Amino acid sequence: MSIGNRSLRSSTRHAFIEAVHGENRLRLGVLGSGKGSNFVAIAQAIADGSLPAEVGVVISDVEGAGILQHARERGIPARFIAPGAFRTKLDPDSEAAFIGALREARVDLVVLAGFMRILKGGFLKAFDGQVVNIHPSLLPSFPGLEAWKQALDYGVKVTGCTVHLVDQGVDTGPILAQRAVPVLEGDTAASLHQRIQEAERTLYPETLARWARGGLGRRIPAASSQPPA
Amino acid sequence: MSIGNRSLRSSTRHAFIEAVHGENRLRLGVLGSGKGSNFVAIAQAIADGSLPAEVGVVISDVEGAGILQHARERGIPARFIAPGAFRTKLDPDSEAAFIGALREARVDLVVLAGFMRILKGGFLKAFDGQVVNIHPSLLPSFPGLEAWKQALDYGVKVTGCTVHLVDQGVDTGPILAQRAVPVLEGDTAASLHQRIQEAERTLYPETLARWARGGLGRRIPAASSQPPA
Repeated sequence: MSIGNRSLRSSTRHAFIEAVHGENRLRLGVLGSGKGSNFVAIAQAIADGSLPAEVGVVISDVEGAGILQHARERGIPARFIAPGAFRTKLDPDSEAAFIGALREARVDLVVLAGFMRILKGGFLKAFDGQVVNIHPSLLPSFPGLEAWKQALDYGVKVTGCTVHLVDQGVDTGPILAQRAVPVLEGDTAASLHQRIQEAERTLYPETLARWARGGLGRRIPAASSQPPA
Repeated sequence: MSIGNRSLRSSTRHAFIEAVHGENRLRLGVLGSGKGSNFVAIAQAIADGSLPAEVGVVISDVEGAGILQHARERGIPARFIAPGAFRTKLDPDSEAAFIGALREARVDLVVLAGFMRILKGGFLKAFDGQVVNIHPSLLPSFPGLEAWKQALDYGVKVTGCTVHLVDQGVDTGPILAQRAVPVLEGDTAASLHQRIQEAERTLYPETLARWARGGLGRRIPAASSQPPA
């Protein structure tokens, strides 16, 4: 086959060109509530070529969140969507707005990066098996909030971080990757949290890159997985 | 101070000589039900000088257990004590016999090395805070039996082993040390178990050595902790 082959059907050629030009790269929709350090690590991995993906949109439930500012600085669409009246989840209108914005941005994978609300059935059904999270412990130990503090209080000597698919439970979904982090003598909650976050900032982009390359069960569209004959 | 100092009081001098000659070394009582690979690792660490301890007795609830044979080969007192009618614990007479044998051997620390019965209140009261175990997972994940298989079935990417003090719960006591072990692509329960056991065979002697040197809350007798003035 040559690109100049006149017999190449237009739709096939379009798919081939997309694959060559990376237009069919994994599109991420990133949700975060905080300063966005994991988002920055992901954006840097995309910029340096180690993560074959692009960020379609960054959405926050917190209007002044640093993650939105980081997105704007990089020219990435950044949206605040008000979460509604609940403290720990999105209200129905907000959930619908989140889903709509992610679909509008045509994202393949929803990436939670410090998103502090629990996503419920409606959202998870809309992006079935396509929502990933990073959690600051070696799950199944220490699900829930402040996992680094739970680990320190329990007295473990090894903790870490976990990238997992999000399901209906709290930090119970299938595990994609984990990295161990030692608890050191004299660690405080803050020092341990910082060391875990450093591990997260390498583990998350690496795991997304494996996903993007199809090594973790990503459903790669036919256009890029089947080159034209 | 010099050893020849005539003013050195006899009892103090005796303590000093004990410390120098290692007569006050940590005395271990090892309990096991199986082949004794962790006991062998401990005995080797004692032999090569990295673990300043000695094994006062090895006791098994299984008459033909390999651990007893390994002890006899090393000239270490090895005893079978019948466990009684229960399947998962010692009956009262057996518990009393275990306690008696460990006291007779003047052990400072009871080391569980593949001992397959749960030790109950009476035993734990007799050796309060002086019973250690090694468990083949990163506790608090996967307490109980076949922890490596539990880890594989759950789908974690990092597991490991844990040395902990034994309390009334199942694998819930204070953690002394942990080591991470990766779960590899294609691991079976057997291959993962083997990799965890390799980690155990270094972690257990190292942790006992830290205990023996007083770095883990060992109550060191005054004779060795206070050198003569």
